[in-house]
Amino acid sequence: MWDRLLVDCRVATMEAAPDNPLGIIEDGAIAIQDGRIVRAGRRTELAGNRAREVVPLGGAWVTPGLIDCHTHLIFGGNRADEHAMRRAGATYAEIAEAGGGIVSTVKRTREASEGELLATAAMRLDALMKGGVTTVEIKSGYGLDVDSELRLMRCAKALAASEAVRVVPTLLALHALPADWKERRIGYVSMMSDQLIPAAAEAGLAEAVDAFCEGIAFTAEEVERLFKAADAAGLRVKLHAEQLSNQAGAALAAKYKALSADHLEHLDEAGARAMAAAGTVAVLLPGAFYALQESRKPPVQMLRDHGVAMAVATDCNPGTSPLLSPTLAMNMACTLFGLTPEEALTGMTVNAARALALEGEVGTIAPGKAADLCVWRLESLAELGYWIGLPGPERRIYAGDDA
Amino acid sequence: MWDRLLVDCRVATMEAAPDNPLGIIEDGAIAIQDGRIVRAGRRTELAGNRAREVVPLGGAWVTPGLIDCHTHLIFGGNRADEHAMRRAGATYAEIAEAGGGIVSTVKRTREASEGELLATAAMRLDALMKGGVTTVEIKSGYGLDVDSELRLMRCAKALAASEAVRVVPTLLALHALPADWKERRIGYVSMMSDQLIPAAAEAGLAEAVDAFCEGIAFTAEEVERLFKAADAAGLRVKLHAEQLSNQAGAALAAKYKALSADHLEHLDEAGARAMAAAGTVAVLLPGAFYALQESRKPPVQMLRDHGVAMAVATDCNPGTSPLLSPTLAMNMACTLFGLTPEEALTGMTVNAARALALEGEVGTIAPGKAADLCVWRLESLAELGYWIGLPGPERRIYAGDDA
Ligand SMILES: [Zn+2]
Ligand SMILES: [Zn+2]
Repeated sequence: MWDRLLVDCRVATMEAAPDNPLGIIEDGAIAIQDGRIVRAGRRTELAGNRAREVVPLGGAWVTPGLIDCHTHLIFGGNRADEHAMRRAGATYAEIAEAGGGIVSTVKRTREASEGELLATAAMRLDALMKGGVTTVEIKSGYGLDVDSELRLMRCAKALAASEAVRVVPTLLALHALPADWKERRIGYVSMMSDQLIPAAAEAGLAEAVDAFCEGIAFTAEEVERLFKAADAAGLRVKLHAEQLSNQAGAALAAKYKALSADHLEHLDEAGARAMAAAGTVAVLLPGAFYALQESRKPPVQMLRDHGVAMAVATDCNPGTSPLLSPTLAMNMACTLFGLTPEEALTGMTVNAARALALEGEVGTIAPGKAADLCVWRLESLAELGYWIGLPGPERRIYAGDDA
Repeated sequence: MWDRLLVDCRVATMEAAPDNPLGIIEDGAIAIQDGRIVRAGRRTELAGNRAREVVPLGGAWVTPGLIDCHTHLIFGGNRADEHAMRRAGATYAEIAEAGGGIVSTVKRTREASEGELLATAAMRLDALMKGGVTTVEIKSGYGLDVDSELRLMRCAKALAASEAVRVVPTLLALHALPADWKERRIGYVSMMSDQLIPAAAEAGLAEAVDAFCEGIAFTAEEVERLFKAADAAGLRVKLHAEQLSNQAGAALAAKYKALSADHLEHLDEAGARAMAAAGTVAVLLPGAFYALQESRKPPVQMLRDHGVAMAVATDCNPGTSPLLSPTLAMNMACTLFGLTPEEALTGMTVNAARALALEGEVGTIAPGKAADLCVWRLESLAELGYWIGLPGPERRIYAGDDA
């Protein structure tokens, strides 16, 4: 006997078929046992089986739970005052002089107690979960030394234990160069590569290693040094690539079989080709594009032409994307980057799962997958790309239970 | 004895003082009696009085309930498919050929039963209320004939009766010219002026009369004809003005002492001067600017220079601004139009109240005003302009009660 049987619903399994790219099942049913999906199909196909609980959904749409595959969720303080200063006409230089920018977040993160970090991150996580998120990636990156980075990874683990959401921790080992390492860049990169990565790997605190490859951050050579250390530690890699300029980061990421290359506003054709060949997912982050009021968009048509899978994420972070809504991320991907609603939904389900190496576990509605689901009171799935600021699903089901 | 006493909070009364533009009270308290505010001040000032219920707020911020002073909330269907077609590359002509545009909304609105109209509008209203809205303006405008417009106004009245929110109905009497009136423009304007306005006024169904002054809609002369009829019926006016081009609509609105002129992307200095002299509020609608991906922004600095009060609203509508979040409207006003967070909050409280002629009733926290309040779990009010997609207040108090 099944635990639960969801009926009277239209299901977007996201298991693509040639004539049915979203795997839509009209008058569908989903059987759940021990937190996992055991069957999904037409209601008539599932008839004759019994369930402890039959859940009629009144014709609503059911999709996989949303996956936010790129966030910097854990940090001290916020940068609302800096944001306000910018609106009041302050220049970047003036903000930096006033102690603003990432330096201020690093300072407030180091000063915050673990309890404070967890409480504020939990509020943001709660907003994402209300929006339908059932799996969230969380990066470190505001510690900037070995102990502080490991501490952030432990916070991610603590959130995973306390909240009804799957947390995927990523070690953002090269995010920004601290001022006191300015004359010793190589030393900093070596420390993060040779001390931080092995320590995080040994403690089982990270699923992947990430870096920020950019003129204002780290060079491709420095990132490659880090990626070699990740390889040696048995960890997959990801990369913040081509956000503000073309550093050939996407090709570097592909060379190391990266799970994803993220941002990509300045991606070129060689990078796209390399990503396609390596199976590296393109993670699009329209929240940062919006918050920074950028004009250069990622080359979506080029990604389509080369068959690069596209994911969409909030990039939730205090400086460049204080975005708390996954449904808004989907709308922004459509409105700002020109994705279709189907691409946006694919980008927060099946493709986001691939960007986290979780495609065997979540991202589609299929037997064996976790029963992480969203129930949407909508006429059509296209509405997920259409409404601006849609609050979230009517029901959010995590590991089989309403949560 | 008071009904409720809110304590342990920081209050932004929005009663401006020269040295305290948001009227902030640290360690404040708010006394409520019969759904109204009877006192607001420092906690120590309110000591010695008794209340049936003391509500400690744990240091949260309290603001007036948000006022969404420009929405088109009641309509049949939605235009998600059209939105998706645009993303997939369809031109406006192709969408129009497929029956899209406002014509499709008018058709689906006329076809919908009153129950359907109320149910779908209530879902959208619920989203706005979750975001902190305690007063919402609702325009007609998808009927396009006398009976259909009056029906929409009756729907607004029904929503007012069933939901814990103050509804201000506006008769959008000139929105679009129906195709079958193309050769009889004057006849249509006369019908709306001489039949619709008196009928709505007599039945007490509208607080104000609105129109869309634009190259693709109605001329200034046609709008003036309507405004004279509104004057004769004793109704205040508003105007959709200078959104896509400069039609000198703002000056016309000011000439008729309009409560507000709305959109204003193409406002010129003469218009701003006239608005200032007439006390006409500038209602900024960043959701439409965002959804249409416009490039021309309203002249915010010019409005400041002339002392024109600025309000901010969602413009929630199915075609050009399917925006469901007042907190996102505030963020967009800051991010896209450069308002300060203080201006954005003023724009959804005290100035929005003025745009609805409700400044004696709502929009600030002061004795005699309705006890419509939002309780925000935030460090600073600047966060209201900073977070993108903030879910809404921790508590929403309407007429003194949590709702
Ligand atoms: Zn990032
Ligand atoms: Zn409007």
